[in-house]
Amino acid sequence: MDVPEGFDPGLILALNLAGTFVFGLSGGLAGVRARLDLVGVVVLAAVVGLAGGIIRDVLIGTSPATFRDWRYLAAAAAAGLVCFFAGRLLERAERSVMVFDALGLALFAVTGATKALRFGLGPVQAVLLGAITGIGGGMLRDVLLRQVPTVLREGLYAIPALLGAAVLVIAQQAGSTNPVFPVLGASVCAAVRLFALRYGVDAPTPPHSPPPTKEPSR
Amino acid sequence: MDVPEGFDPGLILALNLAGTFVFGLSGGLAGVRARLDLVGVVVLAAVVGLAGGIIRDVLIGTSPATFRDWRYLAAAAAAGLVCFFAGRLLERAERSVMVFDALGLALFAVTGATKALRFGLGPVQAVLLGAITGIGGGMLRDVLLRQVPTVLREGLYAIPALLGAAVLVIAQQAGSTNPVFPVLGASVCAAVRLFALRYGVDAPTPPHSPPPTKEPSR
Amino acid sequence: MDVPEGFDPGLILALNLAGTFVFGLSGGLAGVRARLDLVGVVVLAAVVGLAGGIIRDVLIGTSPATFRDWRYLAAAAAAGLVCFFAGRLLERAERSVMVFDALGLALFAVTGATKALRFGLGPVQAVLLGAITGIGGGMLRDVLLRQVPTVLREGLYAIPALLGAAVLVIAQQAGSTNPVFPVLGASVCAAVRLFALRYGVDAPTPPHSPPPTKEPSR
Repeated sequence: MDVPEGFDPGLILALNLAGTFVFGLSGGLAGVRARLDLVGVVVLAAVVGLAGGIIRDVLIGTSPATFRDWRYLAAAAAAGLVCFFAGRLLERAERSVMVFDALGLALFAVTGATKALRFGLGPVQAVLLGAITGIGGGMLRDVLLRQVPTVLREGLYAIPALLGAAVLVIAQQAGSTNPVFPVLGASVCAAVRLFALRYGVDAPTPPHSPPPTKEPSR
Repeated sequence: MDVPEGFDPGLILALNLAGTFVFGLSGGLAGVRARLDLVGVVVLAAVVGLAGGIIRDVLIGTSPATFRDWRYLAAAAAAGLVCFFAGRLLERAERSVMVFDALGLALFAVTGATKALRFGLGPVQAVLLGAITGIGGGMLRDVLLRQVPTVLREGLYAIPALLGAAVLVIAQQAGSTNPVFPVLGASVCAAVRLFALRYGVDAPTPPHSPPPTKEPSR
Repeated sequence: MDVPEGFDPGLILALNLAGTFVFGLSGGLAGVRARLDLVGVVVLAAVVGLAGGIIRDVLIGTSPATFRDWRYLAAAAAAGLVCFFAGRLLERAERSVMVFDALGLALFAVTGATKALRFGLGPVQAVLLGAITGIGGGMLRDVLLRQVPTVLREGLYAIPALLGAAVLVIAQQAGSTNPVFPVLGASVCAAVRLFALRYGVDAPTPPHSPPPTKEPSR
């Protein structure tokens, strides 16, 4: 490839597989909670784990890597099986779906932005595409379980993804391919997201609207 | 490109950006009404403004133009911000979501059909793809807000889009690249859609079904 | 094409068109039941009939065949019209949506796996992609009508699709291009699916969960 390669491909692959696995956990746990059966849990884990990367590749205009590389499929399926058999344990950790979701968001925001840069997209587009990669899986999870997507309801979901992707894009634009930056970007994203979850921070609501309700459309 | 170019690219670009903006308004206003916060409103505006064109490009089999061209991103984001800060004003105009939606439908039907012809698809396919470009954004808006898509519930939604696209495809097939035809096609589509909205005209219901209800699946 | 061709293209085309038509019937009937109007019924038939193949082609990374080939469009539209005008008749056959859905699942599982092999994907990926081709249409139908997708709720939906695709992939890997194998694969898939429907067989539920309910999230 004749475009600048950017960060260590091995690190990016590892982050991508980790993102697939934790998003898979988030999807699988949501499936266990909705009392889906074995197949439903694994399918939902796979959809959530793989959708972000597929949407990213379609938007970049490249052939989705997922189905050529068995490791992504294995990571997503493993997450589904873990949820099915150990779901009770994972559930004890309160709000565990949200925690895994935050980690997946962080990892995919960083790897999505990296891939966008590698395919020659501009920095603003790369930040947006990073956020979309992170948001896609959870959005599809919510649509399939018939909920208004988290990203539309809670302000500090897209914003941490944009921040995490921005850290990486700025570093890359400044010429640095130090592997600390993808890790830093992912950490910033996860930290902001978890902080917002813990303390209930939200984005502003329209100036003229009545007091916000948490789940407005129910 | 060695296929016939068709209409003035500048006009098509202008129509496309206008379509992105008005569909963005339709999405953003729907978000304000569902009491989403700032990020939710902007994200929904962007999804509705950009989805039609992305679906069109994926179905044609070309790389989506959206993420290479910042102007689309800017148009969609601007629409979201307008809705967030001036939503109350826009809402006063009754059924404004529907009006903006009709304009977006008209603009995208025409530009979608034009792009399909430029990529060598047949006239029937171009008409269908124009309609799909117009329908895609609103369909996704309704799915994300957990409503049965308008296009499935109201007959005169797909039909005006098909009509508008057909005007353009027939003109192009007849060899005319006069810029009046995209404008005429969009006007026909918008006029039929708004007429149907105003007077409650619907497509026929199945011969054997009970008296139609406006929102059957609620 | 310099990759092994596999099975008779004419047979695969016939199976694909049949799959499009029966999935179209499944979508159109679901539309009639939801009391959609003419356009809604045809659009839903087209979406369900065409979505599986489009998702397959996007995941393979090739341009979707659907919009280049009018026969798919005609098959899907014909299914919609049949449902609109003869819906009452089709409905008398109890659970007819489910039966057509099982046939579509079977046909698309086989043709999806075949196409994946032809584009050089590995055998495991081909089996998965066959199942996804079969599942995609029904999944979208359920999302558009605001139901949790069948595949997530009922275990023996994805499994028959995987079985049917596996029959074909194993035969092809063993070097046989005998046209009996796609037919056998589709038959296995349809038989297992219909058997599960008839006798209410389900995939196992999580070990720790309360007694399963049929539609958990309602």
